[in-house]
Amino acid sequence: MAYTKEPDQLSIKTNVDLLKERQTATFDVASLTQILDGGKAKTRRRKQLESLVLSDPTLNPLDRSVDRLELYDRSLRKAARVYELKVKHNWSPEDMKMVLRMLNDEHALGVHEVMFIPCIERLGTAAQRAKWLPRAHTLEIIGTYAQTELGHGTNLAGLETTATYEPSSGQFILNTPTLSAMKWWPGNLAKTANHALVLAQLWIAGKKFGMQAFMVQLRSLEDHTLLPGIETGDIGPKMGVPYTDNGYLILKNVRIPRDHMLAGFAKVSADGQFSKVGSDQVNYLTMVYVRAKIVDWAFNGVSEAVTIATRYSAARRQGSMKPGDPEVQIMDYMTQQYKLFPALAAAYALFFAKEQIMKEYVRVTKEIQEDSNFKSLPELHSQAACLKSFSSDSSSHLIEVCRRACGGHGYLISANLSTIGVDNVSVVTAEGENTVMFLQTARYLMKSFAKSTMGQPLPATVQYLSRDWSSYECPVRSERDCLNHNVISDIHLKRASYLVKRAADHLQRRLSAGDPQHVAWNRASIDLVTAAVGHAQAFVVCNFCTSLSQLDADTQILEVLSTLCSFYGLHLIIKHSGEFLEAGSISGNQLELIRRQEQALLAVIRPNAVALCDAFDYHDVTLNSALGGYDGNVYEELYGRAKQCVLNKTEVLPSYYKHIQPLQRRLKARL
Amino acid sequence: MAYTKEPDQLSIKTNVDLLKERQTATFDVASLTQILDGGKAKTRRRKQLESLVLSDPTLNPLDRSVDRLELYDRSLRKAARVYELKVKHNWSPEDMKMVLRMLNDEHALGVHEVMFIPCIERLGTAAQRAKWLPRAHTLEIIGTYAQTELGHGTNLAGLETTATYEPSSGQFILNTPTLSAMKWWPGNLAKTANHALVLAQLWIAGKKFGMQAFMVQLRSLEDHTLLPGIETGDIGPKMGVPYTDNGYLILKNVRIPRDHMLAGFAKVSADGQFSKVGSDQVNYLTMVYVRAKIVDWAFNGVSEAVTIATRYSAARRQGSMKPGDPEVQIMDYMTQQYKLFPALAAAYALFFAKEQIMKEYVRVTKEIQEDSNFKSLPELHSQAACLKSFSSDSSSHLIEVCRRACGGHGYLISANLSTIGVDNVSVVTAEGENTVMFLQTARYLMKSFAKSTMGQPLPATVQYLSRDWSSYECPVRSERDCLNHNVISDIHLKRASYLVKRAADHLQRRLSAGDPQHVAWNRASIDLVTAAVGHAQAFVVCNFCTSLSQLDADTQILEVLSTLCSFYGLHLIIKHSGEFLEAGSISGNQLELIRRQEQALLAVIRPNAVALCDAFDYHDVTLNSALGGYDGNVYEELYGRAKQCVLNKTEVLPSYYKHIQPLQRRLKARL
Ligand SMILES: Cc1cc2nc3c(=O)[nH]c(=O)nc-3n(C[C@H](O)[C@H](O)[C@H](O)COP(=O)(O)OP(=O)(O)OC[C@H]3O[C@@H](n4cnc5c(N)ncnc54)[C@H](O)[C@@H]3O)c2cc1C
Ligand SMILES: Cc1cc2nc3c(=O)[nH]c(=O)nc-3n(C[C@H](O)[C@H](O)[C@H](O)COP(=O)(O)OP(=O)(O)OC[C@H]3O[C@@H](n4cnc5c(N)ncnc54)[C@H](O)[C@@H]3O)c2cc1C
Repeated sequence: MAYTKEPDQLSIKTNVDLLKERQTATFDVASLTQILDGGKAKTRRRKQLESLVLSDPTLNPLDRSVDRLELYDRSLRKAARVYELKVKHNWSPEDMKMVLRMLNDEHALGVHEVMFIPCIERLGTAAQRAKWLPRAHTLEIIGTYAQTELGHGTNLAGLETTATYEPSSGQFILNTPTLSAMKWWPGNLAKTANHALVLAQLWIAGKKFGMQAFMVQLRSLEDHTLLPGIETGDIGPKMGVPYTDNGYLILKNVRIPRDHMLAGFAKVSADGQFSKVGSDQVNYLTMVYVRAKIVDWAFNGVSEAVTIATRYSAARRQGSMKPGDPEVQIMDYMTQQYKLFPALAAAYALFFAKEQIMKEYVRVTKEIQEDSNFKSLPELHSQAACLKSFSSDSSSHLIEVCRRACGGHGYLISANLSTIGVDNVSVVTAEGENTVMFLQTARYLMKSFAKSTMGQPLPATVQYLSRDWSSYECPVRSERDCLNHNVISDIHLKRASYLVKRAADHLQRRLSAGDPQHVAWNRASIDLVTAAVGHAQAFVVCNFCTSLSQLDADTQILEVLSTLCSFYGLHLIIKHSGEFLEAGSISGNQLELIRRQEQALLAVIRPNAVALCDAFDYHDVTLNSALGGYDGNVYEELYGRAKQCVLNKTEVLPSYYKHIQPLQRRLKARL
Repeated sequence: MAYTKEPDQLSIKTNVDLLKERQTATFDVASLTQILDGGKAKTRRRKQLESLVLSDPTLNPLDRSVDRLELYDRSLRKAARVYELKVKHNWSPEDMKMVLRMLNDEHALGVHEVMFIPCIERLGTAAQRAKWLPRAHTLEIIGTYAQTELGHGTNLAGLETTATYEPSSGQFILNTPTLSAMKWWPGNLAKTANHALVLAQLWIAGKKFGMQAFMVQLRSLEDHTLLPGIETGDIGPKMGVPYTDNGYLILKNVRIPRDHMLAGFAKVSADGQFSKVGSDQVNYLTMVYVRAKIVDWAFNGVSEAVTIATRYSAARRQGSMKPGDPEVQIMDYMTQQYKLFPALAAAYALFFAKEQIMKEYVRVTKEIQEDSNFKSLPELHSQAACLKSFSSDSSSHLIEVCRRACGGHGYLISANLSTIGVDNVSVVTAEGENTVMFLQTARYLMKSFAKSTMGQPLPATVQYLSRDWSSYECPVRSERDCLNHNVISDIHLKRASYLVKRAADHLQRRLSAGDPQHVAWNRASIDLVTAAVGHAQAFVVCNFCTSLSQLDADTQILEVLSTLCSFYGLHLIIKHSGEFLEAGSISGNQLELIRRQEQALLAVIRPNAVALCDAFDYHDVTLNSALGGYDGNVYEELYGRAKQCVLNKTEVLPSYYKHIQPLQRRLKARL
């Protein structure tokens, strides 16, 4: 192709804009990257792994415009390659985590890795672990976690799949008694897995003993054909995550030996006696872990999206402020900054939130395993539920904001924002639907609130409910006051405590009017969710503040993060200003000061925006975006990627001769 | 497949639930459908067309999981079939509108139909219309509208494509001078169109005369090959609308005759004299029309999505309120109603909004065409801009809310919510990016506000700015008061007028501090957008109220719509409560009353929810949803569609032998 002017004039200019943005940074990007990675050594290790993994074409991002069969084939090839490298290079679990992150978890064996194996580890006996884990690690056994059914996801108690123990044979007989009982959703189930952990209702001698996990072989280990009594298939294309073959499963009198029930916490004796072993509360830890992982994914999604959109907003020039003036970078528009910077701030807020919940997870796990002390579990469980929901709600919203901030080009798959979005939004529903999760947290908040009114001590994350807020007066008198982290934290805590009390009052009002407990709960549930969201926000904001106060970083980094933190806290106040006003945590005048400061901070953040994104240090292959590459040559990239499109292989497509030409002739003939 | 119990027990139960919902309706669904269609005759005509069009397998919704080449082929086949039927049955423009609506506009010739032809009609001379339109109607000419470039979309003045007039030959010479100048985005451009209306900067004798539209033949009418100097291609896969081949175009010294410049409003004489003809303000009408169409699309999207989600919420049972009780329909959860009913109310609000803006469009067009009276144009233009943006923001948000309300199954393509969403969201950006649109409205609001302070009269939609709000006191004293449409309207108008004033004050503050006009504008732009959004909401709410007061319908229908209208108005107040409190349009106590009434209305709407969706009367083929079918047999549908998935054609996929088996062996060998 030839232009009448020099073709890459523009690209050189674009580069310069991004370069300029980088020169205005007030802090050392590499140091911040190391903080985000968890230390210099980890950054080094990540980069080693990146150069190994991301240079491997098999492991490149999938082209999702091929048909599903081909896509499945490539995902499986990708997964096989990951496993091959993992074994070859003897990757540690932490290495593997880094690798999956740089691949955006895009490969066909996710559930095997993230759910099947951990579930055996946690719910199996020592003998079961010894029997299955080594084979799972070498992929002889490829497993799925088959819990959800067509008819039941949220309500696990309603699962219909049955496992009936037959003492005479010493076997469980598994069945799918109704259409709605078929397993539906398990990842890797359709075509990839040869084993499944099937969650089923245990029946012994006509009595139901609740849900247990059963190891069921689905396919021959020789030729991968389905075993008798087993029907599986793919549940069809999805909004995102096309690399996973989510499947259905119908079981018809499938027999498995007695020792195929995971027996770490419950046992069936040969003659059919059921007994519990230890505390199955430990089981909650798995849920907590996966939900904490989701906070991490939310962080990944937002930080990738905001990196793409911010770099593009520096490179893209569109319109001039004043007629006749040269075009400005779109990042110069305040409205554009108001799209990008909340996402940027949220990314850092979520980073510290996931660090905190992971730390708590480790601490509580230790408490439980070393001292059989379960006392911190309810709090952790409640926190994981609301942080999972808040972070996935935030990330899905903000990724979409970033996508739209890229204008028309953001709608292209080559921008990669839509793909990040559709994959990421799956966790709004999976692993506990968000509304249901917020209601779980609300239950904990109601209990805690009740305790606080009785003067009982509360754990750290809900201690604010015990504080006497009646005499609280927001000390904001000037725009400057709005920057103070303690002030911001208190404003949020007061609002959260108000929302919790409001929900509790609503419940009480319903009860007093004669509603039974469960009716009252339902009728107050909108306010209960609002309370849980407010609680989650307060936690994330306060945790951002606290984390910074404890952060080992140079003053330049602390300063820029501190600004970001203030902005985040203020932005949430503006976004939900009605609740803050109602709570009395700010006055109308203070709201105006907060709005002014919030908007003023945009200009403070601006010089560091690109650098704050650079600090996430995403490899170009991971970002996979024509708009978000490090060098900012967006137009060359867009054009280069478009040229590879399959429609462009031939000048005239056969479809024209098939459908248009004959019609043109027919229509002409009619004239 | 065989179950151990009766397989369709459940489906019968599901049907019963939906049936029950229909029996609780307090109004006649068919009557409401006729209102929505615009009369009994139109309903009849629509149903005739539906039975013709939707029974044709070529016209069924596209399976988007095939590869792009195949998808393009099917879209083109579909488009050809639509044209064939159109000519065969001599469809009127209104028929065609109905047909495209029932097809969700899913076919490959959209831009030819919606932009290319109308543009010739509006910008061409009589001779040009006579020359091109008949050929366009028989598809001899297939056209695209090529305005946007890689480097410029929003800022049309920045377009770089040149058309240089050469008096010696009487030709324009078109060029793509830089990489960023290539046309990028035009629909149908890549492979389908053989002509393009190219928007280019007109140059004559070294002088620039601004943007004009040029008819450029791209491909041979014989064999569809590209003509010399022309390069086109597809810009690659997109988030949605895969049925359109959006393309790029590079022009290299392409010569076209002088009469290929659309000359309805500007002319170039043979010797190179440029002159304007008539008023090119008329051109704005095209933009207004397309933006009004978008309000219509937004209505379509939300009404489809809420129909699917509401029916599913009636059919889906999940969890029980009280342990041990039978499972409830998820629509029984207040939080679920709080997802569905705002979308339902918004669908009706958008219906009346699009009716109104279309009516205004017709009225103003007549004023202009009959009396050359342009006085209503600025108001209409401003209204179209903010309604386009508000409705597409709302619809994209609410469609996603509906999708999530369907839990895991909402993530399946077979639910069709994701497809409705990704197609619909394109109009948030296309046809004027929403932020830019809101800022255009804000400009009109600032002008109107200035006029109001000078006591000048204002047109209807901004008249509230002239009202004296200083003595206004919201009359809400009880929950009942909150239902009053006048009260609700005033609350919204007062808030809108406050936001407009706040933005104007912000501007003024900046100007007083010495900012030049354009800097002040930018620095106030966040508040300006907020004002435009508030204005749009007030308009939609007030228009909903007014439309009902003028609606020719029976009392049952009026009652249910009136409830929905109150709910819509109250819900927006709760959602943006901070702004209403700040505006002083309600007090804190009134907010509490409003919240209670808003929540209380959920129970009032509930018995009519399914019927209100049924009234949209979407054909099952149009909805194309396993979750949203009229009969509510959701599980059978999900399973039935899954079975057709291409991955399920073979029990063991070759990919297993290619990628997994060899790896399993290698890994085993390493042990
Ligand atoms: C991408 C993806 C991957 C998945 N992978 C797996 C897997 O590997 N293995 C597996 O077993 N499962 C898997 N699942 C299933 C997933 O766990 C469930 O979809 C999820 O738990 C939500 O449950 P549901 O679909 O039943 O939603 P539903 O409960 O049907 O939700 C529908 C609506 O009902 C509302 N609702 C339901 N109950 C209540 C209540 N008590 N109170 C108020 N509102 C309520 C919800 O808020 C929601 O709005 C996956 C799902 C997805 C989307
Ligand atoms: C599905 C689809 C179909 C399309 N079909 C066609 C077609 O057939 N023919 C055609 O010619 N074009 C088409 N387009 C292009 C479309 O018209 C443009 O993408 C659209 O006008 C937005 O412009 P942009 O892409 O330049 O966005 P940009 O202007 O680059 O927007 C990027 C960001 O900058 C911000 N911004 C830009 N200017 C300002 C400003 N002045 N003030 C404040 N903020 C600003 C925006 O708010 C946005 O956040 C299509 C686009 C899409 C997505």
